Amino acid sequence: MSTAFSRPEVETLVRQVTLEYLARTRTKIAPALTVHSSARHMHLSREDLEALFGPGHELTADRPLFQEGNFAARETVTLVGPRSRLISNLRVLGPLRSKSQVELAYTDAISLGLDIPIRLSGDIAGTPGAFIMGPRGMIELKEGVIRAAIHVHMNPAEAAHFGVKQGDLMKLRVGGDAGVTFNRVHVRIDERSRLNVHMDTDEANACGLHLAKEIELTK
Amino acid sequence: MSTAFSRPEVETLVRQVTLEYLARTRTKIAPALTVHSSARHMHLSREDLEALFGPGHELTADRPLFQEGNFAARETVTLVGPRSRLISNLRVLGPLRSKSQVELAYTDAISLGLDIPIRLSGDIAGTPGAFIMGPRGMIELKEGVIRAAIHVHMNPAEAAHFGVKQGDLMKLRVGGDAGVTFNRVHVRIDERSRLNVHMDTDEANACGLHLAKEIELTK
Repeated sequence: MSTAFSRPEVETLVRQVTLEYLARTRTKIAPALTVHSSARHMHLSREDLEALFGPGHELTADRPLFQEGNFAARETVTLVGPRSRLISNLRVLGPLRSKSQVELAYTDAISLGLDIPIRLSGDIAGTPGAFIMGPRGMIELKEGVIRAAIHVHMNPAEAAHFGVKQGDLMKLRVGGDAGVTFNRVHVRIDERSRLNVHMDTDEANACGLHLAKEIELTK
Repeated sequence: MSTAFSRPEVETLVRQVTLEYLARTRTKIAPALTVHSSARHMHLSREDLEALFGPGHELTADRPLFQEGNFAARETVTLVGPRSRLISNLRVLGPLRSKSQVELAYTDAISLGLDIPIRLSGDIAGTPGAFIMGPRGMIELKEGVIRAAIHVHMNPAEAAHFGVKQGDLMKLRVGGDAGVTFNRVHVRIDERSRLNVHMDTDEANACGLHLAKEIELTK
């Protein structure tokens, strides 16, 4: 299946399967819920950015993401897994972080031969590593390859609306021909966030997100 | 990601992510539940088999499947999608059927550019087609490319145990770090069946089936 993943990169990065939904609620707030599917991608530290792209290099924003300040960069890298299999054109997301991190779906990880855990972004202690190649160099990530746990970003007002606090788990029911409920949607609250569920491509494809007829986020 | 799907074919065909589970029940029956993840594959009619592999060709069983009489054949084909992308080494499952049918995960279908519906096996009227290449010829399937709906095979005694009938929908809860409930598991009852849930690779990867800590099938 040599060309299977060569769909246009923008499409590969974050499939624009977006659903607007007014939360059913007895209050008048009714925040609009958007669900995005994130394709595999990577975050870079300053040090790793320079090792891969050269001293003084800065990420070039290609496209803003839904959460303010985040963007898909023009930069891509190649990940080399333990069975000498690789993922090319792995998109870098900005801004830079304190630690580099790779987020893969299990479909990706299994094909690479990487046994990765489900973690919240940033929680990478003890996770597998990989070799990353850029145009100006290669690095060995000692750890940081994860499957990102499904999560929902929201601001404090939205959290109050749902009656949830940081770290709580919510349920996301996606209705349609597939009909899947995600029972462990991690709540991530930040003042600058906009209500938005992030799932990976396996989850989006399992629930047929692009065909979903209704979506319900509940405590 | 050119080599991503070249994992050993047997592995590609049906990942042996199998979980034995004793259904929690107040009766003494407690049938053992096995959940299998089916990778993309194809079923062939006699006519299409001969067009692809030559007159008089018979499928060669490579490996028996869990449901008695079904097997993974040695034969594979190449599927060519509408954007001239292809899936090579698409495994043929036996025995032959009255109509040919291709079962893909959405991860496969989206990469091919095929907009396929979720259907029960055999219900292919009005679904997309594809070109199929074999060693002795090529055919145009006019229809028959589907994503198979998640389903559970069982015999009448097992159906009685669960209190379900043909065509009912059940729920399958897969617990673990992912935590996913499949709300529309179609019941397929046959005298020769063994209790067994079939999901596709997207579903298995979404729920982290290979890491699942508990599985529960309920009405």
